[in-house]
Amino acid sequence: MGVRNAFYAQSGGVTAVINASACGLIEAARAHPEAIGTVYAGRNGIIGALQEDLIDTGAESAASIAALRHTPGGAFGSCRYKLKSLEQDNAKYARLIDVFRAHDIGYFFYNGGNDSMDTAHKVAQLAAASGYPLCCIGIPKTVDNDLVGTDNCPGFGSVAKYVATSMREAMYDVAAMASTSTKVFVMEAMGRHAGWITAACGLAAPEDGPLLLLLPEIVFDQEKFLSRVNDTVKNHGYCAVAVSEGLRNPEGQLMGEAGSRDAFGHAQLGGVGSQIAQLVKSTLNYKVHWALPDYLQRSARHLASRTDAEQAYAVGRAALEFALSGHSAVMAGLERVSDDPYTWRVSPTPLAEVANREKMMPEEFIAADGYSITGACRRYLQPLIEGEDYPPYAQGLPAYVRLTAAAVARRLPAFRA
Amino acid sequence: MGVRNAFYAQSGGVTAVINASACGLIEAARAHPEAIGTVYAGRNGIIGALQEDLIDTGAESAASIAALRHTPGGAFGSCRYKLKSLEQDNAKYARLIDVFRAHDIGYFFYNGGNDSMDTAHKVAQLAAASGYPLCCIGIPKTVDNDLVGTDNCPGFGSVAKYVATSMREAMYDVAAMASTSTKVFVMEAMGRHAGWITAACGLAAPEDGPLLLLLPEIVFDQEKFLSRVNDTVKNHGYCAVAVSEGLRNPEGQLMGEAGSRDAFGHAQLGGVGSQIAQLVKSTLNYKVHWALPDYLQRSARHLASRTDAEQAYAVGRAALEFALSGHSAVMAGLERVSDDPYTWRVSPTPLAEVANREKMMPEEFIAADGYSITGACRRYLQPLIEGEDYPPYAQGLPAYVRLTAAAVARRLPAFRA
Repeated sequence: MGVRNAFYAQSGGVTAVINASACGLIEAARAHPEAIGTVYAGRNGIIGALQEDLIDTGAESAASIAALRHTPGGAFGSCRYKLKSLEQDNAKYARLIDVFRAHDIGYFFYNGGNDSMDTAHKVAQLAAASGYPLCCIGIPKTVDNDLVGTDNCPGFGSVAKYVATSMREAMYDVAAMASTSTKVFVMEAMGRHAGWITAACGLAAPEDGPLLLLLPEIVFDQEKFLSRVNDTVKNHGYCAVAVSEGLRNPEGQLMGEAGSRDAFGHAQLGGVGSQIAQLVKSTLNYKVHWALPDYLQRSARHLASRTDAEQAYAVGRAALEFALSGHSAVMAGLERVSDDPYTWRVSPTPLAEVANREKMMPEEFIAADGYSITGACRRYLQPLIEGEDYPPYAQGLPAYVRLTAAAVARRLPAFRA
Repeated sequence: MGVRNAFYAQSGGVTAVINASACGLIEAARAHPEAIGTVYAGRNGIIGALQEDLIDTGAESAASIAALRHTPGGAFGSCRYKLKSLEQDNAKYARLIDVFRAHDIGYFFYNGGNDSMDTAHKVAQLAAASGYPLCCIGIPKTVDNDLVGTDNCPGFGSVAKYVATSMREAMYDVAAMASTSTKVFVMEAMGRHAGWITAACGLAAPEDGPLLLLLPEIVFDQEKFLSRVNDTVKNHGYCAVAVSEGLRNPEGQLMGEAGSRDAFGHAQLGGVGSQIAQLVKSTLNYKVHWALPDYLQRSARHLASRTDAEQAYAVGRAALEFALSGHSAVMAGLERVSDDPYTWRVSPTPLAEVANREKMMPEEFIAADGYSITGACRRYLQPLIEGEDYPPYAQGLPAYVRLTAAAVARRLPAFRA
């Protein structure tokens, strides 16, 4: 369809490697001037498209774009903003097409999770219905690893490496202190519904190690948990606990529920770690310490998994290549070819099969006692944290890039969302 | 005094590099068989000496001892256990001498903070008074950086690098989310009395960056703080806050005081981070996230400062060399020779000048507004986080060593402490 421009936006919670996907996409686009004009990025995600607030990535140096590969956060800004159905948000979808038309955008790349794949799918439907030629490609991203249509999600492997490493290091600390001080250490891990990140904490120790996992897939049983903690301290001298922010009580309520909800209607969580710590302290009378890594776990580019960084870059590059080869309404999914040696490839997955679905942990990944992961789970997780990919350092700290993020001149009247 | 054995113990909270000091000491001892027989380590610190529970480090392979250099935690076990005055705890001090005599221990190396240097000093006094030939050397260790007689403390540089890196990464995350989601990020840092670790968070951003420090040296002023947060969000779009666990309210009380106290009588802290987060959320109505790294910050060997790791190793080695050159009742202190280029050396500092004193942050390190650090502070801190010293990895995780920690046969009747 000749030379046309591309639009790229980041959506939802950012990760240590989402910018690596942007890097892969933009570097691939720059290698195809015969097909791709300028890659415009939405400032603060899809909101940038609605408001015609576009960033000209062409104004960024090759060095700055290359530095995105090792820079955490979302270089163009992300947003928590969900477009509803084509009927409910018809004006907004139409506005997207207007903005794309005004800037001759023929390619729409949306980098996000479930909600974003749904949006990309709807935009593809509307473009087709309104006869506007638009190639829509989804680029997977979520630390929660709950996207279907991909063996794993870029962003997850680095969080997994971070929480497993952090838990291992904390366990070395507590092991040394336990004789006269802290005997129980609790760490709260992200993961609203699926226990992937909490499961990854399990890699910190062998299956018979003094580490208990509280997965969101397993309803919390207070008595059983406390007796397991007690037994573990008796047998090992100390006990480490990784608890999911999504842990639920027998009534089915989120234990850490804070009451407020985000723009997607998801509950804002936090606090279950301190609840578990207080419970152990007050009932078993052990000295307890607890940690809440929060954003540190998803922004820890200094400890990124090399596998994750390579896959994040690869899905960005593949998204562009799929577009050039005529694909549309697909997501650049990761396909596991083999476990050992671990090999993978990027494959196009229809957005229709991805949108609005969640990949939960398979039952066979959770040990019978409910407090640890199985060998099958370790075989799935291990390759995802394999390898290190250190950023450059300057003056003792990681040297991350800030883009100039120059705005593109508006061509349309303002839009009131 | 011919060939005699040595005793080494770790004390108080462990760090990412205290084992590097043990490594330096033991490797130096092995290089001097003409003077040092076996290095015995106290299992769980000084308690191991009181209970005659000694670990034969001679039974550990050279590879295992070398691996201590990159292994966090306390390989021989530490303890929170303070010996009182020579009068009050006379029996315990006498027991130490008995155990040392029973195992022909002529060298006492104590690796810890203020309290430990005081203990080492008292043991030296008692040995001299009782005519038992014993060389007593202190090896500095504390993440709090509050020891006098040394320009900085081994253990601090790595925590400083960790909190500054973590804060920088979280700020990249929040910067991307702020338009529709989190606008304020709060991270709680360790440091009971002195604000060294909180100050190190200041390295994450330039002096005019959207980062506020709540130092324990500055009484918390709620109104002033909230207006600063509000201004920062208005000017930068978001605001990051590093708060010390030792922050005090105008009444002089620790805001995070949890009520319980450790064996040294220190208050057990935690929770001020959530208090500040809640305060900002409820009064300014911004979405807030907060993190509590807790033990993760002091055990993060994966992000150790190379300067810190080298200095930790050097003070351990120097302690042995000071002993062989006839020093006693001294601590192997770090002396800063120059700032730029940063050069340093290890010097013997009389324990009498170190014991029971705390090094607070100098006033000239805190900016006039009380929320940031000065250039002088940056010049002091920067070299301490310089350089990376990555541990080896296996299967995607740091490969840390576990010693066999073989027990030495007891020669004395049991002792009831």
